[in-house]
Amino acid sequence: MLINCAAYQNGRKLADISVSEIHLYIHEPDCFVWVALKDPEPTELNAMQKEFGLHVLAVEDARHGHQRPKIEEYGKSLFVVLQIIEPTDGELAVGELAIFVGGNYVLSVRSRAARGSTDVRDRCEKEPDHGAAAPGYVLYALMDAVVDRYFPVLDALETQLENIEERVFANQTTRVNVEDLYELKRKLMIVKHAAEPLLDATARLFGGRVPQLCTGLQEYFRDVYDHLLRLNQSIDSERDMVTTAISVNLALITIQENEVMKRLAAYAALVAVPTMIGGVYGMNFEHMPELNWEYGYPVALGAMAVIDAYLFYRFRKAKWL
Amino acid sequence: MLINCAAYQNGRKLADISVSEIHLYIHEPDCFVWVALKDPEPTELNAMQKEFGLHVLAVEDARHGHQRPKIEEYGKSLFVVLQIIEPTDGELAVGELAIFVGGNYVLSVRSRAARGSTDVRDRCEKEPDHGAAAPGYVLYALMDAVVDRYFPVLDALETQLENIEERVFANQTTRVNVEDLYELKRKLMIVKHAAEPLLDATARLFGGRVPQLCTGLQEYFRDVYDHLLRLNQSIDSERDMVTTAISVNLALITIQENEVMKRLAAYAALVAVPTMIGGVYGMNFEHMPELNWEYGYPVALGAMAVIDAYLFYRFRKAKWL
Amino acid sequence: MLINCAAYQNGRKLADISVSEIHLYIHEPDCFVWVALKDPEPTELNAMQKEFGLHVLAVEDARHGHQRPKIEEYGKSLFVVLQIIEPTDGELAVGELAIFVGGNYVLSVRSRAARGSTDVRDRCEKEPDHGAAAPGYVLYALMDAVVDRYFPVLDALETQLENIEERVFANQTTRVNVEDLYELKRKLMIVKHAAEPLLDATARLFGGRVPQLCTGLQEYFRDVYDHLLRLNQSIDSERDMVTTAISVNLALITIQENEVMKRLAAYAALVAVPTMIGGVYGMNFEHMPELNWEYGYPVALGAMAVIDAYLFYRFRKAKWL
Amino acid sequence: MLINCAAYQNGRKLADISVSEIHLYIHEPDCFVWVALKDPEPTELNAMQKEFGLHVLAVEDARHGHQRPKIEEYGKSLFVVLQIIEPTDGELAVGELAIFVGGNYVLSVRSRAARGSTDVRDRCEKEPDHGAAAPGYVLYALMDAVVDRYFPVLDALETQLENIEERVFANQTTRVNVEDLYELKRKLMIVKHAAEPLLDATARLFGGRVPQLCTGLQEYFRDVYDHLLRLNQSIDSERDMVTTAISVNLALITIQENEVMKRLAAYAALVAVPTMIGGVYGMNFEHMPELNWEYGYPVALGAMAVIDAYLFYRFRKAKWL
Amino acid sequence: MLINCAAYQNGRKLADISVSEIHLYIHEPDCFVWVALKDPEPTELNAMQKEFGLHVLAVEDARHGHQRPKIEEYGKSLFVVLQIIEPTDGELAVGELAIFVGGNYVLSVRSRAARGSTDVRDRCEKEPDHGAAAPGYVLYALMDAVVDRYFPVLDALETQLENIEERVFANQTTRVNVEDLYELKRKLMIVKHAAEPLLDATARLFGGRVPQLCTGLQEYFRDVYDHLLRLNQSIDSERDMVTTAISVNLALITIQENEVMKRLAAYAALVAVPTMIGGVYGMNFEHMPELNWEYGYPVALGAMAVIDAYLFYRFRKAKWL
Repeated sequence: MLINCAAYQNGRKLADISVSEIHLYIHEPDCFVWVALKDPEPTELNAMQKEFGLHVLAVEDARHGHQRPKIEEYGKSLFVVLQIIEPTDGELAVGELAIFVGGNYVLSVRSRAARGSTDVRDRCEKEPDHGAAAPGYVLYALMDAVVDRYFPVLDALETQLENIEERVFANQTTRVNVEDLYELKRKLMIVKHAAEPLLDATARLFGGRVPQLCTGLQEYFRDVYDHLLRLNQSIDSERDMVTTAISVNLALITIQENEVMKRLAAYAALVAVPTMIGGVYGMNFEHMPELNWEYGYPVALGAMAVIDAYLFYRFRKAKWL
Repeated sequence: MLINCAAYQNGRKLADISVSEIHLYIHEPDCFVWVALKDPEPTELNAMQKEFGLHVLAVEDARHGHQRPKIEEYGKSLFVVLQIIEPTDGELAVGELAIFVGGNYVLSVRSRAARGSTDVRDRCEKEPDHGAAAPGYVLYALMDAVVDRYFPVLDALETQLENIEERVFANQTTRVNVEDLYELKRKLMIVKHAAEPLLDATARLFGGRVPQLCTGLQEYFRDVYDHLLRLNQSIDSERDMVTTAISVNLALITIQENEVMKRLAAYAALVAVPTMIGGVYGMNFEHMPELNWEYGYPVALGAMAVIDAYLFYRFRKAKWL
Repeated sequence: MLINCAAYQNGRKLADISVSEIHLYIHEPDCFVWVALKDPEPTELNAMQKEFGLHVLAVEDARHGHQRPKIEEYGKSLFVVLQIIEPTDGELAVGELAIFVGGNYVLSVRSRAARGSTDVRDRCEKEPDHGAAAPGYVLYALMDAVVDRYFPVLDALETQLENIEERVFANQTTRVNVEDLYELKRKLMIVKHAAEPLLDATARLFGGRVPQLCTGLQEYFRDVYDHLLRLNQSIDSERDMVTTAISVNLALITIQENEVMKRLAAYAALVAVPTMIGGVYGMNFEHMPELNWEYGYPVALGAMAVIDAYLFYRFRKAKWL
Repeated sequence: MLINCAAYQNGRKLADISVSEIHLYIHEPDCFVWVALKDPEPTELNAMQKEFGLHVLAVEDARHGHQRPKIEEYGKSLFVVLQIIEPTDGELAVGELAIFVGGNYVLSVRSRAARGSTDVRDRCEKEPDHGAAAPGYVLYALMDAVVDRYFPVLDALETQLENIEERVFANQTTRVNVEDLYELKRKLMIVKHAAEPLLDATARLFGGRVPQLCTGLQEYFRDVYDHLLRLNQSIDSERDMVTTAISVNLALITIQENEVMKRLAAYAALVAVPTMIGGVYGMNFEHMPELNWEYGYPVALGAMAVIDAYLFYRFRKAKWL
Repeated sequence: MLINCAAYQNGRKLADISVSEIHLYIHEPDCFVWVALKDPEPTELNAMQKEFGLHVLAVEDARHGHQRPKIEEYGKSLFVVLQIIEPTDGELAVGELAIFVGGNYVLSVRSRAARGSTDVRDRCEKEPDHGAAAPGYVLYALMDAVVDRYFPVLDALETQLENIEERVFANQTTRVNVEDLYELKRKLMIVKHAAEPLLDATARLFGGRVPQLCTGLQEYFRDVYDHLLRLNQSIDSERDMVTTAISVNLALITIQENEVMKRLAAYAALVAVPTMIGGVYGMNFEHMPELNWEYGYPVALGAMAVIDAYLFYRFRKAKWL
C-alpha cells in the first residue's frame, strides 16, 4: 500500500507526486524522492525495484521480511532493516522497516506495524537547513525514530520487573511470579534482537570508512549509536537482574517452605501431646492409681493444657508460630 | 555412488557426461564440470583426486567425514565442509556435504544424508545470466541450500520449546519436561555446531581478501553470512531460554512441593483433632463427669465436627485446600 | 543556576566575571573561561550554546540528562558526560555532570547532584605550574574528582556484602538476607553503569590519536583510566561474589531445612512411641495378662520412659537434637 | 633415557647413530638428526643443550616439566611443549612431550608418559617425498600424533556422559551420578588445558608470519589446528552439557522428593483414618448407642475399609500411589 | 625503611653505598644503583623522587598503595606495581611491590609484606654475564620472583579444594563445607586480582614496541608471561570447579534430605501400624468376638509384629532403611 510519495529539493518539499512521476524528479539535480510503502504487494515492490534499480537480494529480503536488523551496502546505495516493536495486548509485536537509500531516493517499506513515520516526515520538512536536503538525513531521522520508540518499550519492561520484585519480596512467592519472570526474559530477548545487531551496523556509519550517503552526518549517526549502546546496556542489566530474581525467588520459596514446615510441626506437636496423654490413661491396667483419684481427670486435662501452653510459648519465642 | 556429472559452458548445461569424459571438458575455455557423489567408495574419490588434482589433506577429510564445518583454501581452489542436519525419528541425523571447487570444476560429496541437491542444480540451470556460469556461484547455491535447510530444523526446536513451556506452566512439572528440556539443549548444540563455525569461514568469502573464485559474488556470500548470523542469534537465545526454563521449572517444582505439603498438613490436622478428642474421652478415669452425661457422646462428636469445619474454613481461606 | 564563572590566564585566576563579560575574555591569548551551572534552565544553556558555539546534539544531551557516561569529540571540542553517584537514605542517587571543553572554555553542567566541585576549583587554582593553565587539565581534574568519589560508594557496598556474609554464615538464613543481596546487586549495577562506559572513552584520551585538548596530559588521563580499571575489577568480583552468596545461601537454607526436619522427626518419635504403647494396652481383650499384673502400669510407663531415653540418646549422638 | 638417535638426509634415514656422532652429521647439507629422550637425566639434557645450542629458558622448562602447552620461537629454532593424556585406572595421567626443533635437528623429550612415538618415526620414514626431509615435517607429525590421541580420550568421556545421562533419566538420582558428573567435569578440564592453549599457538605456524621451519608446511599445520578447533568445540559443549546435567539432576531429585512425599502422605492417610475411627469408638461415654448395636463392630470395620478403599482409589487416580 | 642500597657496574657489585652517595654513581657509565625500601616514610620517597627524577603520579601511587598491578611507562623509565600475596593465619595478606626502573637505577618499594627480595639480589649478583649488568634484568628477576611465589599459594588453594571435595563426597554435607567453598572462591579472587592485570601488562614488555629498558630481554619477560598465563588458567578452572562444587553440594544435600525423609517415613510407618491396631481393639463395642478369644491378645500382638516385620523387609529392600 502506498502511504506517501513526495519529491524534495534543497531541503524543501516540492510536491506529493504519483509513482508514475518519480522518474521525472529523480534525475533533477539536488532533488530526491521519498516513497513510503506499507505491507506492499509484490507488484509494488517490483515497480520500485525497476524505478530505483534496487539489488535483487535486498528486494528479496524486504519481500520475505523476518530479517534480523542490518545495514548493507550495495554499491553506493544502502539497505537498512530495522525491527519495529509495538506492545499489543501484553505481547510485543515485531514489525519491520526496510529502508532503501540512494543518492536521489529514499524508499521505506513498513511491514506488520501499526504506527507510521508521519512524525519523521514532519520533522524532516521542518528542518530544511539541517541537512534535510539529503537522503542520508532522512535515513538518520527514520533510524532515530525507530530506536527512540524502543525506550518506552524497555521502560515498560523495567516497570514490570519492579512490580514482580515487589510481589516477590512481599512474600508472594507464587507460581505467577515465576511465569512473569520467564515471560519478561522472553520479551527482553525480543528487544535485544532488535537493538543489538544494529549496534555494530550503525558504528560503520560514522567511524572508519563512512558510506558516501552518510558523510557530514557522522555526529547524527553517532547519536543513534549512543542511544543503542544505552539500550543494550539496560537490556543486559535487566536480563541479569531477571536471572538473579529467578534464583532469589527460588531461595525465598525454600525459606517459605521452611517456615511452613516449622509452623506445621508446631501445630502437630500441640495435638500430639494430648493424644499421647490420652493414650496413656486409656490403658486398661487394673492397678493405675491415678484413675481412681477424684481429681485425676482434671489433673490430666490440666497437664495437657500446661504442656501445650508451654510448647506454644516456646514455639512463639522461636518464631515457629 | 555417482549421482550426477555434467559439463557447463557460459551458464548453459552442455551435456550429462561420464566420468571418463571429464578431462575433455575441463580444459575448454569458460567451461566447468560439476560432479556429485554420494557416500563414495575410496576408489571413486581417488579417481576424482587425480582428475582435478585435489590436495591430499582435503581428500582425507572428505574420506574420513565427521569434520567440523570449514572453508579452506588450497592454492586457488576451495575446500568446503558443511553439515547436513536431517530430523529422523525425533533425532537429528548429522550428514556431511564436502565441496571441492576449482576454476573449472565443482565436486560435491554428500555423506550420510538422505536429501540431495537436485533443487540446487535446477536453480542454477534456470539462472544462466546470474553468474551460473561460474563454479563460485554453484558453491554459493549449494551453501545457501544447506543453510536454508537449518531454518525448519530450528523452527521445529522452537515449537518444541513452546510446547514444553506450555506444559511446565500448566502445572505439569513432570520428569518428562525436564528430560525434554535436556534433550532440546542437546539438539540445539548439534545445530550450533553446524552453523557457528561456518560464520567466520563465510565472512572470509566476502570481506577483506576474497578468494578469486568468489570475486563478484560477495553480495551473495554476504547473504549466506547474514542467514547464518540470524541462525546463531536464534540458537543462542533459545539455549538461554532452555537454561532459564530448567531453573524456572525447578522453582515451580519447589512451589508445588510447598503446596502439596500444605494440603497434606491440612488433611492431617482434620484427622488429628478427632483422634485427640477420642483419645481424651478414651481415658479410664473413674471420675469423668462428661462420660455420664446423656448427650456427652453427641456433644463430643459435635465438637469434632465443629472444630474440623472451622479448620477446613481456615485452610480454604488460606488457600491450603 | 549559575554556580561559578571565572576567567583564567597562564594558570592564574584573573577574576570572577559575569556571564555577559565572557566574550571579553575568551578571545584573549592563553586565557580561558570556566563556567559551572547547576540544574540549569533551558535559557541558561541556550545562552552558553551561543557564547561558546556548542554543538546542538551535545546541548540536547545535556538538557535531557539521563545519558550514559561518554566522551565525544565535536570538531576540536570535547563533550563529556559523567554520572555522579551519591548515597541518599540507603539508596544511590544518580546525578550527572556534563562537561563541554574547548580551547578557551570549560562549561560544567551539574544535574540532580548535591555535592559540587569547589574542591576541584581550589585544587586547580593551587597548582598553576602543573598545567592548570589549560582547559584540558580542568577536564582531568573534574573527571578525577568524580571517579574518586566512586570509591567510597563501592567501599560501602563491600562493607554491606561483608555484613550480609556474616549474617548468612551465622545461621541467619532469613528472607532479609536474600533481599539485601538482591538490592546489593542492583546497586552494583548502578555503579557499573557509571564506571564501565567511561573506561573505553577515557582510553581514547591518552592512547592512539589523542584529542588536541589532552596532549601533554596523557599521563594524567591514564591515571584516571587506571582508577576506572580498578573500580571495574572490584565491581565485577563483587558481583560475582553476590551471585555466589545467593547460591551459597540457598544451600545453607536447604541444610537448615534438613536439620529442622530431623529435629522435628526426633521429637515426633519421642511422642509416637508412648502413644503406640498406650494404644496396645488400651485394647479391650479379655485375656491380657499384663493388665492384671500389679506392676503392669509402672512397667508400661517405665518401658515408655526407657525407650524414649534410648531414642533421645541416639538422636543426640546423631546430632539430630 | 635415550630412546632413539638417527640421522636423516633428503628424506631417507642414514643410520642409527650414537650421541657422540651427532656433531658429525649435523653440519652436513640437507641432513638432520632426530633424538628422542624419555624422562631424561639432567646430564642428558645438558649434553643436548651443548650439542644443539638450545636456549637456557627452554631447557629449564623441559627439565621442570608441568608446563602449559606452548610454542615458542627462540631465534630460528622452535620450542614446543605438548601435553600427553593417557587414561590410567579411570584417571587421566598427564605427561609431557617437549620438542626442540632447529634447522638440522629435532629433539623430543617425553616425560611421565607410557606410549612413545615409534609410529610417528615409521610414518615419517615411509613418506620421504612428502617433506619428511625436513625437521618441520617431523614436528608436524609429532604434533599430529599427540593431538590425534586426544580424540579417543574425549570419546571415552562422551560415552561416560551418555551413561550418566541414561542413569539419571532412568530415575536413579543417586549420589553416585552427582559424583560422576563432577569427576567428568574435572577430566574435561584436563583435556581442555591440553588442547586450548595449543590452538592460538598452532595458528601462528600457518597464518601471518610463519617461522622459517614451517614454511611450505602451512596446510599441514592448519590441519592440526582444525583438529584442535574440533576438540575444543566438543570439550566446550560437553562441559556445557555436564553443567546442564547437574541442574537437571537437581530438578529430578526434587521431583522425586515430591513423589516420595506424596506416596508417604497417602499411606499415612490410609493408616490415620482407622486410627481416628478406633479412637472415636474407644471413648468411654455411657451413652453411645452404636456400641450396643449387634453389628456395630463390623460396621465400624466396614467403614474403615470403605473409607480406605475410597482414599486408595483417589490416590491412585491422582498418581500419588 | 632502607633495606639495601648498592651500586653495580658491568654486572658486578661495586659497593653498598649510602643514600647520599647515590648521585656519585648514577652518572658513571654502565653503572646503576639499586635501592630497596620497605614501608617507607613519605620523606624517604620524596628523597628518592628528587634523586632519580620520578614522575609525581607514580610516586603518589607508591605512597598511597592499594594499586592494581600495572606496568606504566613514564618517558624512558618504567613504573611497575606488583601485588605480593602471603598466607597468614589462614588468610591471604596482600602486600605490594612498587618498582621504579630507569636507565641507571632500580628502586623497589615493598609495602605490607614480610618476605623480602634478598634471594633476588643474590641471584642477580651470581649471574653477571647473563645481563645482570642492566636494570631491565633486575626488573625481570624481581617480577619472576613475585610471580613464582604465587604458585605455592595457588597450590595450597587447590589442596583446600581437594579436601572440601573429599568431605563433600564423603557424605558430610555440612554447613562448614559451604562456608569453606565460599571462602575459597574469595581467596581465588584475590590471587586473580594479582595475576590477571599483569598478563596484558607483561605482554607489552616482549611483543610489539618494547620499552628500551627491556630490549634484549624479551625471552625472559615472555617466560614471566608464560607463568602468568599458566596461573590464570589454573585460577579460572579452579573457580569454575568451586562453582560446580557448590551446586553439586546442593544436589547432594537435597539427595540427603530425600534419604532422611524416607528413613523417617519408614520408622513412622513401623510405629503407626501397631497404634492403628491398638486403636481398633480399643473400641468399646459390645459385640467384638475377637476380644473374647483366648488368644485374641497374642494374635493381635503377633499381627503387629508380622506387619512391622514385613514393612521392615520391604523398606530394607527399597533401601529406605
